[in-house]
Amino acid sequence: MNSSPEFPAGLPFVKMHGLGNDFVVVDTAQSGVPVTPALARAVGDRHRGVGFDQLAEVLLSERADLKLLFWNSDGSRSGACGNATRCVAEREMTARGTDCLAIETERGLLTARRGAEGMVSVNMGQPQLDWRDIPLARDVDIMALPLPGRPAAVGMGNPHCITVVTDAEAVALDVIGPKLEHDPLFPERTNVEFIEHRKDGTLRMRVWERGAGVTLACGSGACAVAVAAHKLGLTGREVRIELDGGWLTIDWREDGVWMTGPTAEVFSGTLSPGLLAALS
Amino acid sequence: MNSSPEFPAGLPFVKMHGLGNDFVVVDTAQSGVPVTPALARAVGDRHRGVGFDQLAEVLLSERADLKLLFWNSDGSRSGACGNATRCVAEREMTARGTDCLAIETERGLLTARRGAEGMVSVNMGQPQLDWRDIPLARDVDIMALPLPGRPAAVGMGNPHCITVVTDAEAVALDVIGPKLEHDPLFPERTNVEFIEHRKDGTLRMRVWERGAGVTLACGSGACAVAVAAHKLGLTGREVRIELDGGWLTIDWREDGVWMTGPTAEVFSGTLSPGLLAALS
Repeated sequence: MNSSPEFPAGLPFVKMHGLGNDFVVVDTAQSGVPVTPALARAVGDRHRGVGFDQLAEVLLSERADLKLLFWNSDGSRSGACGNATRCVAEREMTARGTDCLAIETERGLLTARRGAEGMVSVNMGQPQLDWRDIPLARDVDIMALPLPGRPAAVGMGNPHCITVVTDAEAVALDVIGPKLEHDPLFPERTNVEFIEHRKDGTLRMRVWERGAGVTLACGSGACAVAVAAHKLGLTGREVRIELDGGWLTIDWREDGVWMTGPTAEVFSGTLSPGLLAALS
Repeated sequence: MNSSPEFPAGLPFVKMHGLGNDFVVVDTAQSGVPVTPALARAVGDRHRGVGFDQLAEVLLSERADLKLLFWNSDGSRSGACGNATRCVAEREMTARGTDCLAIETERGLLTARRGAEGMVSVNMGQPQLDWRDIPLARDVDIMALPLPGRPAAVGMGNPHCITVVTDAEAVALDVIGPKLEHDPLFPERTNVEFIEHRKDGTLRMRVWERGAGVTLACGSGACAVAVAAHKLGLTGREVRIELDGGWLTIDWREDGVWMTGPTAEVFSGTLSPGLLAALS
């Protein structure tokens, strides 16, 4: 195998996940070599690379503790990812010996904090509740859209369409999800959530992600769901939500929607120099 | 995170692939701690673990250079895997400075050799051509089974059902594959291959693997296909086969069916002590 001129010994990375939502973390601030679309695609391949839902690239920031860029496995960029932010924050807070971190992203500055029992919280900012910002195609009641089931629409940097049902498990998500995703009411398409309000006050949520399909967890979706459930009078400002991948706690405070949940480091690794050489 | 008593610093592994058929290699001969079904399941999870088609466990052997055990991601054991054997052989031959290796598996002793241009060959042994050994449910002509398309049946440690077609790309593999897999003629079910004999003498092969569905590559399937194509008079004893994941050369020699192809090391890694502690 050839070795890459930039990485004679290979490129180090860490694999993490939050509720099964999985990430490769690459520290460009240390390696000095930026992630490229070709690298993101190669690393994103689950058979010939490492595989991830998102690649999080750690960069130096002039106005925060660090800067994060998010990459999809097709080589495109992603604006924000709450679970990836929590995962990177856990590592960085541990490395820096701190319990709070300011993180610059393409969607603005996010604050992350360490919570009890190994949990990590991130402030995902305020929801968008104006039809133009979500965005919707026209001015309608965002809490009762003119669609089957009268869903709510909430923006969390990306659009969400949230329907309250009596049994979330019974929803044919892979049939209804793509229909709502492509409904003309959503000019930028939409994420699709179905929620069930349980007797114990928690929410059960299942999610169809725009461009990805059914996923184990969607952090921004959980935030949007909590905002909708509160505005519909189902819950208070803080609520526990069970997703397919596990539990998140969402708290809509004055300074934004806080998402709290577990993070896990799965392994650290070094990309083979041969794989890197094939890219250059 | 807690640390495991056995692996205070985590368990090292290597991720490799042959034609996109991907493997985690764990060297138990070095670590001293055997793979368990729970570890295989945890590591096999593509979101919360590393992910693999097979886990290859390297052990000491009293009658060969090393012993290999193969694990599936559901925690069960797999008898043999040609592509994984080639991948491990490449690493071990490089580490030992040799071009030939004897490998003990649950299916017997395999010989691996280094070929030209970074290729690695493994002798997969002789095919089973008796209906009782493949196995079939009853005594029929194994070169023209009483099924649509008159497929051939060949055993390579596991059963294969091979149909010659004029256009392999046109086959609805995900529809026909499961039907043939579960046909009563195959008491232990079967792998399903469709092959097209091209004008340049090569074979195009697509494969439905028993219990796994459509895969990028199946080494034993390529061997079975070469044996069937030769017995049907389509090819000589050596043939190049294009699978979805790339090319293999199969040569049916006097001492067995040799499979030659590329291997790639994707990354080396260390499983997090926290992930290991959760298993114990």
